[in-house]
Amino acid sequence: MKRVKVSNNVIRRMPRYLRKLAELEKNGVNRISSFELGRQLGLTPSQIRQDFSCFGEFGQQGYGYNVPALREQVGSILGVDRGFTAILVGVGNIGKALMDNFCFSEWGFRLKHAFDINPQLIGTSFNGVPISSMDDLKTYIEKNSVDMVVLTVPSSAAVPVADFLIENGVEAIWNFTNQELTEPNSSTIVENIHFSDSLLSLSYFIAERNDEKAAKAARLEKQN
Amino acid sequence: MKRVKVSNNVIRRMPRYLRKLAELEKNGVNRISSFELGRQLGLTPSQIRQDFSCFGEFGQQGYGYNVPALREQVGSILGVDRGFTAILVGVGNIGKALMDNFCFSEWGFRLKHAFDINPQLIGTSFNGVPISSMDDLKTYIEKNSVDMVVLTVPSSAAVPVADFLIENGVEAIWNFTNQELTEPNSSTIVENIHFSDSLLSLSYFIAERNDEKAAKAARLEKQN
Repeated sequence: MKRVKVSNNVIRRMPRYLRKLAELEKNGVNRISSFELGRQLGLTPSQIRQDFSCFGEFGQQGYGYNVPALREQVGSILGVDRGFTAILVGVGNIGKALMDNFCFSEWGFRLKHAFDINPQLIGTSFNGVPISSMDDLKTYIEKNSVDMVVLTVPSSAAVPVADFLIENGVEAIWNFTNQELTEPNSSTIVENIHFSDSLLSLSYFIAERNDEKAAKAARLEKQN
Repeated sequence: MKRVKVSNNVIRRMPRYLRKLAELEKNGVNRISSFELGRQLGLTPSQIRQDFSCFGEFGQQGYGYNVPALREQVGSILGVDRGFTAILVGVGNIGKALMDNFCFSEWGFRLKHAFDINPQLIGTSFNGVPISSMDDLKTYIEKNSVDMVVLTVPSSAAVPVADFLIENGVEAIWNFTNQELTEPNSSTIVENIHFSDSLLSLSYFIAERNDEKAAKAARLEKQN
């Protein structure tokens, strides 16, 4: 596929499209208009057409989108058909939660191995994923193709472990440590899960609703 | 504070501003231009000025922003000074990870109680947060002010537990279950942590870089 530089906002909407299309397909919906897709996603039809137009021509005037075909195309844009491999570093609570509940394969990733320093974990496996010692990490990376590392070490270890990974050729990190790792000069791709950003957006919406309630109550009181 | 309807994109950028401003303040930076703030965040200065202008006048022409004052104002916009209370429902791996590593109080929330069905957990406490039986959840919500529920039950339990919470007056849910809970007719605020969206964005960037590398290799081969 020929790629042009696409804005970050468009890229960030593609996973939402994929989730929605997968859900529609599961529910037996075969065809959808950009209007209806927009309604369900809280986006305008023109926004949706514009987003997809970054990657080619997918819909058909007067017909709309073929749901299974579009799901496949969006999946392909996102790379889910490339068989990317991943390893997980840090089998604590969050690491275990991901190994236990998160379906990597549903999104095209194969989680092949995990690493930890805890002797009680080393040599065991969790949900089918073998756990090895951090001492074996360097050799593993050298000998195996690793497209991405899930970084779930404690935040105090985040920076040194990330540095170690990058030094050893890791080019993409999914960062759960709540520590900023992005270095302006590194070519490593870092995707951060910022729980706090999500919590603060939620906080905003609660505050907004409370203010609306208070304003409404004040108006009612004035009227009486 | 008087609130006007602010676009979702602006709201979603505010937590990033807060994190950056907290970091700057910690590093002793007292004053910053919108140009420099933009450079550090990958945004244009005019974008930043526009975002803040949704909430009032914060900067000063020719001076820039006072970092501690702006951090406080952004925090206030996001509601971190309102003392919101939270409870957590579902003390599994992800619940434990949040109770263990995530600093709710840093973002203005007090995590007061947790609930689970596991008899081995009930009556204990984790990181200072008492864990009670799900049987006591209804009474707890009735007797205590709960601004938000952290939903960390297994995904199979997500919908029934969310329904139960909403029926019992819960108005905001921070949803870690990977299940869609948003109902168009419910006034409940649901903030989803979608691990998959983040993973798929990462996947896109890996695919993009691989394509660029392949294209470069092909060009080099042509030249030789």
